[in-house]
Amino acid sequence: MAEKIYVIGHKSPDLDSVAAAISYAELKNKITQTDKYLPAAAGEVNRETAFALEKFGFSKPEILKNAAGKKVILVDHNEFSQAVDGIKEAEIVEVLDHHKIDFSYDKPIEFRVRPWGATCTLIAQLAANNGVELSQNMAGLMLSAILVDTVITKSPTTTDKDKEIIEKLSQIAGINWQEYGLELFKVRSSVSDLSAPEIIKSDFKDFEFKSGKFGIGQVETVDLNEFKDRNQELLTALGELKKEGGYHSVILFITDILKEGSLFLVASSDEEGVGKALGGKLENGQAYIDGIISRKKQVVPKLTEAFDK
Amino acid sequence: MAEKIYVIGHKSPDLDSVAAAISYAELKNKITQTDKYLPAAAGEVNRETAFALEKFGFSKPEILKNAAGKKVILVDHNEFSQAVDGIKEAEIVEVLDHHKIDFSYDKPIEFRVRPWGATCTLIAQLAANNGVELSQNMAGLMLSAILVDTVITKSPTTTDKDKEIIEKLSQIAGINWQEYGLELFKVRSSVSDLSAPEIIKSDFKDFEFKSGKFGIGQVETVDLNEFKDRNQELLTALGELKKEGGYHSVILFITDILKEGSLFLVASSDEEGVGKALGGKLENGQAYIDGIISRKKQVVPKLTEAFDK
Repeated sequence: MAEKIYVIGHKSPDLDSVAAAISYAELKNKITQTDKYLPAAAGEVNRETAFALEKFGFSKPEILKNAAGKKVILVDHNEFSQAVDGIKEAEIVEVLDHHKIDFSYDKPIEFRVRPWGATCTLIAQLAANNGVELSQNMAGLMLSAILVDTVITKSPTTTDKDKEIIEKLSQIAGINWQEYGLELFKVRSSVSDLSAPEIIKSDFKDFEFKSGKFGIGQVETVDLNEFKDRNQELLTALGELKKEGGYHSVILFITDILKEGSLFLVASSDEEGVGKALGGKLENGQAYIDGIISRKKQVVPKLTEAFDK
Repeated sequence: MAEKIYVIGHKSPDLDSVAAAISYAELKNKITQTDKYLPAAAGEVNRETAFALEKFGFSKPEILKNAAGKKVILVDHNEFSQAVDGIKEAEIVEVLDHHKIDFSYDKPIEFRVRPWGATCTLIAQLAANNGVELSQNMAGLMLSAILVDTVITKSPTTTDKDKEIIEKLSQIAGINWQEYGLELFKVRSSVSDLSAPEIIKSDFKDFEFKSGKFGIGQVETVDLNEFKDRNQELLTALGELKKEGGYHSVILFITDILKEGSLFLVASSDEEGVGKALGGKLENGQAYIDGIISRKKQVVPKLTEAFDK
């Protein structure tokens, strides 16, 4: 049997990273007429990922705990700080992503980044370029990922290309994407049965800035009130995570996708600086900031500007 | 008039970086139906570049000395250490390359790297993907670049994709590529009227390793004897360049493309270490090493392994 190549997303897998792993492994197998590409995840999948996998009849991908000695294709991330353990001892054969780039590798490899709303948008485009038709279920899974990453096209990261692909995938999947998008976000933002650390970690990424390590989690909701009674519990959990993980700052922002603003909860060595960087003023580690809804396009650039100088 | 976007290759422009700038600017203008993309070079073009530009009726691209405040597309490189001055104050809108990646930027951009033999191979493929036909002269210019970068398909960097594109461009240009390749290399390796510093700088790149700055130049020839009487002069010039530029090592390797090996001339703070890293033994700063003909695929990885730990 040919050597396996794992197609794997970032740690704290979200729907786009898991759907990208599954759909890109299948696309690569079809293009190369092999079965050597295998989807994997760098950890347990989150709630809406499990929901979408089940809805469209996919099993959860294999969990790869350590990639040392393996061949991997990185999807939906390129920074080693976000990658599966062992990445520095892995052979990276390809990268497919839509995030900012911070990457270094000692030989030339296939590397595709587009500033689009989701990695699955790239994969749908690549399938079309290669004349590969997507099945109804695969289109449904990829559509789910794009709807979550673009916040049902409301996120400022949404491009015309995403909208074009959303329409196309909706047709193949036979789904009304506006209605289905709201259903997905209800599943996603239902936090009643989650502990505070689980809420923080549900979509959480590390960033290494010159001032120190930042951990940034995001939760989206259609109703901020759902979190009202749990803010103090979440702040306590953020403080513990900051201490245990040696963070400069740990941030959870709860985005109201209908109001298009976010409540920031922050545990930081420089609370005033973080508030200032985000354009608000934190009181008791909290601030609602209107207009901020994207980690990638708004929060990370603002923090980079302030803390990576 | 719309804001210009400069398409620009690396410092010490070679044929692939100049042909890529010219052909990609034209392709982008055609795809976007604008004229805002403008080819540029980060310095004076070298000998075979001037030859190919004249042969196919292109004028030399504008020299951009500093990119600060400008929008740029980087072609044929991605590392800031090789880019035009002012790159950190420029807005990078896209990258198109075939080298190893060492890149960091604070927002997502279009980034295309393929492990192929030349940037012009990528551009020819992109033109085909976008249904854009290349003119006879543009095909000739791009063919010239691929023949130089792949050493007429003899370099280990040559892929099946390069060979496919070489055949295709040869047909469009109406050129016998084997014969034309030898003609190009005769122009390229004619050094009789060049000074030693000019020979060293004709295709020269800087690399920042943990041990210090390395400068690596390459010259290809069809006859090593052409250099025999000038080795000492070249070594002296390398020593001066090392001192003036604050280099750990300055290396010129003269590749005999028919014998498929290279004569290394080295001025280094650690001559023994450089020889060892390359798999040879330097005597008086010189060693012929069989089988080494590629900076990107052989020399840089070997030096990275030894001096970037």
